[in-house]
Amino acid sequence: MSRIIVPVIMSGGSGTRLWPLSRQASPKQLHALTSDLTLIQHTIARVNADEDEFVFAEPMVILNESQLEPAQAQVKEMGREGVRWLVEPVGRNTAPVAAVAAEVVRARHGDEGMVLLMPADHHIDDEEAFRATAIRGAHLAQTGRIVTFGIKPTGPATGFGYIRRGDAVGDGYLVDSFKEKPELETAREYVADGRYYWNAGIFLFGAGAVVEEMEAHCPAILELSRKAVANAEADGDVTRLDQAAFEAIKGDSFDYAVMENTERAAVVPADFGWSDVGSWSALWEISEKDEAGNAVRGDVHLTDVSDSIVYSTALRVGVIGAEDLIVVATEDAVLVARKSDDQSVKTLVERLRKEGRLDLL
Amino acid sequence: MSRIIVPVIMSGGSGTRLWPLSRQASPKQLHALTSDLTLIQHTIARVNADEDEFVFAEPMVILNESQLEPAQAQVKEMGREGVRWLVEPVGRNTAPVAAVAAEVVRARHGDEGMVLLMPADHHIDDEEAFRATAIRGAHLAQTGRIVTFGIKPTGPATGFGYIRRGDAVGDGYLVDSFKEKPELETAREYVADGRYYWNAGIFLFGAGAVVEEMEAHCPAILELSRKAVANAEADGDVTRLDQAAFEAIKGDSFDYAVMENTERAAVVPADFGWSDVGSWSALWEISEKDEAGNAVRGDVHLTDVSDSIVYSTALRVGVIGAEDLIVVATEDAVLVARKSDDQSVKTLVERLRKEGRLDLL
Repeated sequence: MSRIIVPVIMSGGSGTRLWPLSRQASPKQLHALTSDLTLIQHTIARVNADEDEFVFAEPMVILNESQLEPAQAQVKEMGREGVRWLVEPVGRNTAPVAAVAAEVVRARHGDEGMVLLMPADHHIDDEEAFRATAIRGAHLAQTGRIVTFGIKPTGPATGFGYIRRGDAVGDGYLVDSFKEKPELETAREYVADGRYYWNAGIFLFGAGAVVEEMEAHCPAILELSRKAVANAEADGDVTRLDQAAFEAIKGDSFDYAVMENTERAAVVPADFGWSDVGSWSALWEISEKDEAGNAVRGDVHLTDVSDSIVYSTALRVGVIGAEDLIVVATEDAVLVARKSDDQSVKTLVERLRKEGRLDLL
Repeated sequence: MSRIIVPVIMSGGSGTRLWPLSRQASPKQLHALTSDLTLIQHTIARVNADEDEFVFAEPMVILNESQLEPAQAQVKEMGREGVRWLVEPVGRNTAPVAAVAAEVVRARHGDEGMVLLMPADHHIDDEEAFRATAIRGAHLAQTGRIVTFGIKPTGPATGFGYIRRGDAVGDGYLVDSFKEKPELETAREYVADGRYYWNAGIFLFGAGAVVEEMEAHCPAILELSRKAVANAEADGDVTRLDQAAFEAIKGDSFDYAVMENTERAAVVPADFGWSDVGSWSALWEISEKDEAGNAVRGDVHLTDVSDSIVYSTALRVGVIGAEDLIVVATEDAVLVARKSDDQSVKTLVERLRKEGRLDLL
C-alpha cells in the first residue's frame, strides 16, 4: 500500500525585505517573482505527482485570514482542485503549525500519514530533483525519523542557520547539531568542512512520530494545537482553527521545539536550486537576466544599466546609469537601493511601522 | 513721465529633461521646484515692483492652450490680478513671440513702451538684483538698444550659448558676438577670458526699436506676427492669436533672427543667481540640501544617501545606499538616474514618444 504524503504549505511569512512589493495583505508568496506563477502557485504545483510507493495528497495551506481570498483565487486560476485551507487566527511560528498538521493528517490517514512541511515563499529551480529528494526523505521518515532537508551551500551565507550532519543513515545522515546564523568567518569554515548544510525549514515526518516527539519535548504546544484543531470551524474546504486555544500557545519554531531536542532528527542533503527569495538581491540572483545582467519586470526602460533588478507593477520606470541597483515601483511606493544594502529594507519597513504608515505595510 | 516696461513671460517650454515631472500639459514652469511657488509664479512675482523712472506693468504670459487653465489657476492662487494671457496656436520659437509682444505693447503704450521678454521656467535667486539689472537694461533700451542680459559664468558650462561683449556702452556693453554652445575646452577659454557671458534668453527693448529691426532683418516673421495679432480673438483677459497667420510663420529664435544681425545689440552683465533649471542635477544645484547634500521633496525616506535629489509627488519613496543619484516619482512614472547622466532623460522621453506612449509625455 502506498504511503500518503500530505504537503503542508506554510504561508505565514510576510517577506518584509521584499517591500514595497510584499505587503501584509499581499506577502511575497502571492507575487509572481520568478515566472508567471506566484511563489505559492509554484509551491503547490511542485508536489503534483505520485512517486513509486508514495502518493502526494492534495496540499493543505496554512495562512492567515487576510491572505485566504487572494490565495484561493490564485489556486483557482491554476485550475487546481482539492486544496484545503487552514486559517490560523494569529501567527505562532512553526511548531504549532507542525502540530496542527500532524493532528489533521493523523485524523485522516492515521499515524502512518506523512507531512511534508514547507514554506510557501521559497523558490526551487529543479522540481524533479525536489520530488526525488522528498522521496528519499520519505524513506527515512518511514523508519520513524523526523527529516529536515539540508541545502548544499553554494557559498558562505550568513543569513541562514546551518545543520551539521553526523553518521549516515538511510539516504541521509543523522543530525549532529543545528547552528545559528554564523559570522562570515564561521560560515566559510562550515562550507570548507563539507558536513554543513543550510537549514531551509523544510521537513518531512510521520504524523505519529512527530506527535510522540512533541509529547516529549513541547507538550503545551501540542495540547493547545490539538484543542485548536478539535474546536476548529469547518466551512467547506476552509478550516478555521480555534482562536482562544491557538492564541494561548507560546509560539516557537519547530527547529527549537522539536528538532534540536529529538533523537530522531535526520538530514537529507538537497541540491534542487533552492532560494528563500529573502531579498531583492536574492531574487536578482535567481532571475533570468539580460546580457547586461539586468533582471527586469514591467514597464521598464533601461539606459546604461547593469547587474540591476528593476521591478514595476504598474508605473513606467526609466533608469539611466546604474549598476548593482534595486528599483521597485508599486502603485504607492518606490524603493531604490544598492544591491549590497538590501537588508536595510527591513529597517525601512520597521520605520514605516513606527510612523504608523499602515497603508504602506 | 515714467516709462512702462511690460514683462512678457514666455511659457512655451516643455522641459523634457525634467521628466517624469514635467509633461506636455504640465511642463516644468507649472511645478513648484525651488520653493512652494511654481516657476511661473516666481517669474510673475519677480516683476511686481515699480522702480524710479520705470514702471513694471502687469505681465503678459504667452503659452499654449493646454497650459492656460492650470497657469490661470496658479496666478489666481497668488491673488494676482491683471495678468493677461496670449495663446499661441503652435510653437514658432521666440522671434515671433518678440514680434507679437512688441506689437501688443506698441498698440497700448506706443513705440516708447518697453518689453522685458523672459522665459517662465528659469530660477532667479536674488529678485532685487534681477530688478536692478533690468533697470540698468531699461536705461540702455531707452537709447534704442536691444538689450540681452549676460549671466556671469560660474563655470565652463557647455549647455548654454555665450555672448562676447565689446566696448562699454551705458551700464553695459555692445555685443561683440554670439557663440553657440561650446566644447568644454572652449568654454574654459571663455570663462578665463572674462568677456564672455551665458546667454540666458532674457531681453529688454523698446517696442518701436525692435519692430524697426525686425522690418530690416526678418520682415516675414514680423508681417505674419502682426497679422496674428490683428486677427486675434479677444476673450476677456485672454487673447488667442490667429491660427492661420501664426502657423504660417517659419519659426526662428530671437537670437538668430534679430540679435545676431542688429547693430543695436547690447549686453548687460547679470549676477542674480540664475539657473535655467534645465535638468534634475541643475535643480539639485540650486535646491536647499540637508547635511548629507540631499535635496528632498515629498514622502521620502533616505538611508545612507548623499548628494542626491529625491522628488516624489505622491508615492512613498525609500532610497537606501546611494550617492549622486536622481530619483523622481510621479503617480505614473519613476525616473532613477545618475546625476551625471541626467541629459539622457531627453533621450528617454524621445523613446517614449517613438513608442507612442503619449500618456507619459
